[in-house]
Amino acid sequence: MKRYGFTIGLLASFILSGAAHYIGAPLFSATMQFFISCLAIIFVAGFLGKATESVAHYAGERFGGFLNATFGNAAELIIAIFLVKDGLFDVVKASITGSIIGNMLLVLGLSVLLGGLKYKEQHFNVKLAGHNASLMLLAVIAIFVPASFASSFTKPETTNLSVIVSVILIIAYLLWLLFSMVTHKNELSDEVVEHGEAAWSKGLSVVYLFIATAMVAVQSEWLVGTLETFSHQYGLSELFVGAFLIAIVGNAAEHSAAIMLARKNKIGAAVEIAIGSSLQIALFVCPVLVLVSMLFGQTMNLVFTTYELVAIGVAAFIASSISRDGSTNWFEGVLLLVVYIILGIAFFLV
Amino acid sequence: MKRYGFTIGLLASFILSGAAHYIGAPLFSATMQFFISCLAIIFVAGFLGKATESVAHYAGERFGGFLNATFGNAAELIIAIFLVKDGLFDVVKASITGSIIGNMLLVLGLSVLLGGLKYKEQHFNVKLAGHNASLMLLAVIAIFVPASFASSFTKPETTNLSVIVSVILIIAYLLWLLFSMVTHKNELSDEVVEHGEAAWSKGLSVVYLFIATAMVAVQSEWLVGTLETFSHQYGLSELFVGAFLIAIVGNAAEHSAAIMLARKNKIGAAVEIAIGSSLQIALFVCPVLVLVSMLFGQTMNLVFTTYELVAIGVAAFIASSISRDGSTNWFEGVLLLVVYIILGIAFFLV
Amino acid sequence: MKRYGFTIGLLASFILSGAAHYIGAPLFSATMQFFISCLAIIFVAGFLGKATESVAHYAGERFGGFLNATFGNAAELIIAIFLVKDGLFDVVKASITGSIIGNMLLVLGLSVLLGGLKYKEQHFNVKLAGHNASLMLLAVIAIFVPASFASSFTKPETTNLSVIVSVILIIAYLLWLLFSMVTHKNELSDEVVEHGEAAWSKGLSVVYLFIATAMVAVQSEWLVGTLETFSHQYGLSELFVGAFLIAIVGNAAEHSAAIMLARKNKIGAAVEIAIGSSLQIALFVCPVLVLVSMLFGQTMNLVFTTYELVAIGVAAFIASSISRDGSTNWFEGVLLLVVYIILGIAFFLV
Repeated sequence: MKRYGFTIGLLASFILSGAAHYIGAPLFSATMQFFISCLAIIFVAGFLGKATESVAHYAGERFGGFLNATFGNAAELIIAIFLVKDGLFDVVKASITGSIIGNMLLVLGLSVLLGGLKYKEQHFNVKLAGHNASLMLLAVIAIFVPASFASSFTKPETTNLSVIVSVILIIAYLLWLLFSMVTHKNELSDEVVEHGEAAWSKGLSVVYLFIATAMVAVQSEWLVGTLETFSHQYGLSELFVGAFLIAIVGNAAEHSAAIMLARKNKIGAAVEIAIGSSLQIALFVCPVLVLVSMLFGQTMNLVFTTYELVAIGVAAFIASSISRDGSTNWFEGVLLLVVYIILGIAFFLV
Repeated sequence: MKRYGFTIGLLASFILSGAAHYIGAPLFSATMQFFISCLAIIFVAGFLGKATESVAHYAGERFGGFLNATFGNAAELIIAIFLVKDGLFDVVKASITGSIIGNMLLVLGLSVLLGGLKYKEQHFNVKLAGHNASLMLLAVIAIFVPASFASSFTKPETTNLSVIVSVILIIAYLLWLLFSMVTHKNELSDEVVEHGEAAWSKGLSVVYLFIATAMVAVQSEWLVGTLETFSHQYGLSELFVGAFLIAIVGNAAEHSAAIMLARKNKIGAAVEIAIGSSLQIALFVCPVLVLVSMLFGQTMNLVFTTYELVAIGVAAFIASSISRDGSTNWFEGVLLLVVYIILGIAFFLV
Repeated sequence: MKRYGFTIGLLASFILSGAAHYIGAPLFSATMQFFISCLAIIFVAGFLGKATESVAHYAGERFGGFLNATFGNAAELIIAIFLVKDGLFDVVKASITGSIIGNMLLVLGLSVLLGGLKYKEQHFNVKLAGHNASLMLLAVIAIFVPASFASSFTKPETTNLSVIVSVILIIAYLLWLLFSMVTHKNELSDEVVEHGEAAWSKGLSVVYLFIATAMVAVQSEWLVGTLETFSHQYGLSELFVGAFLIAIVGNAAEHSAAIMLARKNKIGAAVEIAIGSSLQIALFVCPVLVLVSMLFGQTMNLVFTTYELVAIGVAAFIASSISRDGSTNWFEGVLLLVVYIILGIAFFLV
């Protein structure tokens, strides 16, 4: 009975949201569109969380988390490619920054806090934590070095450096997948703790994961559309909207899935979603966008603004300090959220 | 017999120092005042160390250390409020910087070195060490973010950011107390290793702790008074005097108690005094001063000078690197002191 | 038979390389000199690796590694003293930077990667790793503080700060030797895992270590000579040649020995060579050069360029993040090399 109620709510809110998007005013006012989209994103994100959990049941927490992060970022990558095509590099970089810190601080912070309110201490693979920390540091270095050297470089030199660094990062990320999914898979996995049964069969879980991701991607775009109207009305800066509002909504999939898993004591999967997703954006999505921009004739470089550098650096340091011991508790969630709020206020005031 | 000798020395030097302070020249020359104050501070700090140790015997090493740090900082807070009232924000920030690095590097360094010369290796709770490191990082972030954004902010924006960050830090600190003293108290405590008996009964220990703290506060102020005369005579800069001389003397309580405890192999309490005190200043005393300054009509912001940022950042990184494994030895004390000396010389030369 | 072949190759290539160096053009063209030198350096470095391993067999992995690093750096110190005498401070600092990051990233990276391709996981003393990380941080602090304060200092003040910091670093390094070789020797050593026999007797090993080091020093200088001609031909910047090409060739001894030991699962000795050598340069060789420069009448300061600061800081952070857990695998080697390549490209483009 409960299952049917959810399915009906999911489909009804999704269809209604699509109608609002395509029909628009005057039948659906901007405010109405926004609230319908919010309701729908809650349902589709819930669906995705369920699908991820079911896949994780069969494939292990880490691989399920990886799939969730990858599907979530695929949507972001597609949206970003359209922005790159239009040469809106600043918006792309702001949203990359927002995604990275949103996942590292907000998604991880909420998961750790809400998981920690239920369980006194939650544990995940300590070796994975160490590798995550080193990869975060690589991501910080990769955007810090071009920015440090940019002042004395000519524009083409900066572009060259960005392209070469991008290629290196993509290779490093693919080697990381080889390492963590193949050669050292067992060393980095959590102890298997299985509770109960999966919601669906193996095949159905994967199919649902695809469908749910697609729905989240579409729904996110619709919500982002309503957000822009909103932010213009309230006079918010593009940097704040790009780095915070869009990132929060655009990562709805990661949010819901990670928190749900943390509440079920599967913090390993939650960490994989939150930090794994950040790393994928920094080490794969961002460099791919640089290379894609070359195809469009005008190359995006890797030079971020000082504010973005500070935000990413600060997020990486606190997330790595907190996760390095492979165990979490509610106060560590508070710390992550506190840093997110401080950054949010600073960006809001810029 | 020995006990009576100490009590007589304590009272005599304290009374003499008070007389020197109020009567002053020509009966007591500046040099004489200075040496009497130094003698008296050694006695009252010794008394405070004994009282802290006795309270720690009953309440546990961590809570005893927390009490010591809190009482020590209460005195500093009161002095700083008077400076804030007079609008001397630069002096306040210099003395906050001095207190933080003095505790993290000098107090901790001396405790670890002198404890390490007696015991080959000293251990304390490794989880507490990890949390301390994360909190130190939060403190660094909290003063680093406003400074990074200040250049493109208007003055009121900087003030707004400082006030909001201050409120957030105070909430975070109170949640830390809730976490470390209530919900996860046992996870963060040291193994109980009791040697011998306490000097006094439980009630008397607490009373003596109050009295000793009050005496240290008063005596510190007297000594600071004589120091100012001294520093003018020798042409030392306000920054150096504020960040080093006043901080060293003003933290006499922490020094003597922490070293005494380290020599008794209670390094956990010593760490709590040194790092706990730094954290309390950064996450509680400093934000409270920002809020208090609002009441006086002119709001102090959280923007520290580059030198102060460098000093606090460097101190936090080395202290966290050394303490993260929950064990200490004499060489780690040397490292902390080396960094303190390097910073001291740099500030002296500014 | 195999042994004789090696000895003949070693002597022949060394003598030929010397002949090429002293006779020069037109009999030996620049290209020919370069290739002969390269061949010879492979042989002498192989000889040094063998001698180090044999000494390590008797004296323990760490002490063997320390000897290798010390002899390797002795040669660099001597070359640098001549540069200091000529007042070529920028070249000296570039080569110090190059040595530090070359050892921390390239030597360590190759050892960890090639060792990790043979063994799934390699372990070394975790306490030593923690101390190494703290010492690296001290090295970063020691060059970061003078650079931060230099902008508001007069030139003599910067020089004074550099000299005092240098004296402090040398004392700290000597205390580190006392700590790690005397008072806490056993706590920092690896578990003894002996395979097979040493190549030579104890006495002969030490004698060969001396001879091999001398040959490497001489051969390195010859190769550096040919490199300079080369780099002028191809228009490479002095910074890039000093910090990368000379450092790579000049550290041939460390390279070959460390990789050979890592392939024999003696990663502890490899780490000691790579990180121990970096630390010796930063905390001993560099400060000694500052003091030596005083004798020549014109004092070198410790203010490095921003690029050099970035390179050393980045190298120290990633090396410390990777080595802190006392275990290594092939992917961590990849990470170190990736950072080295990124820095190399940035310096090449400057």
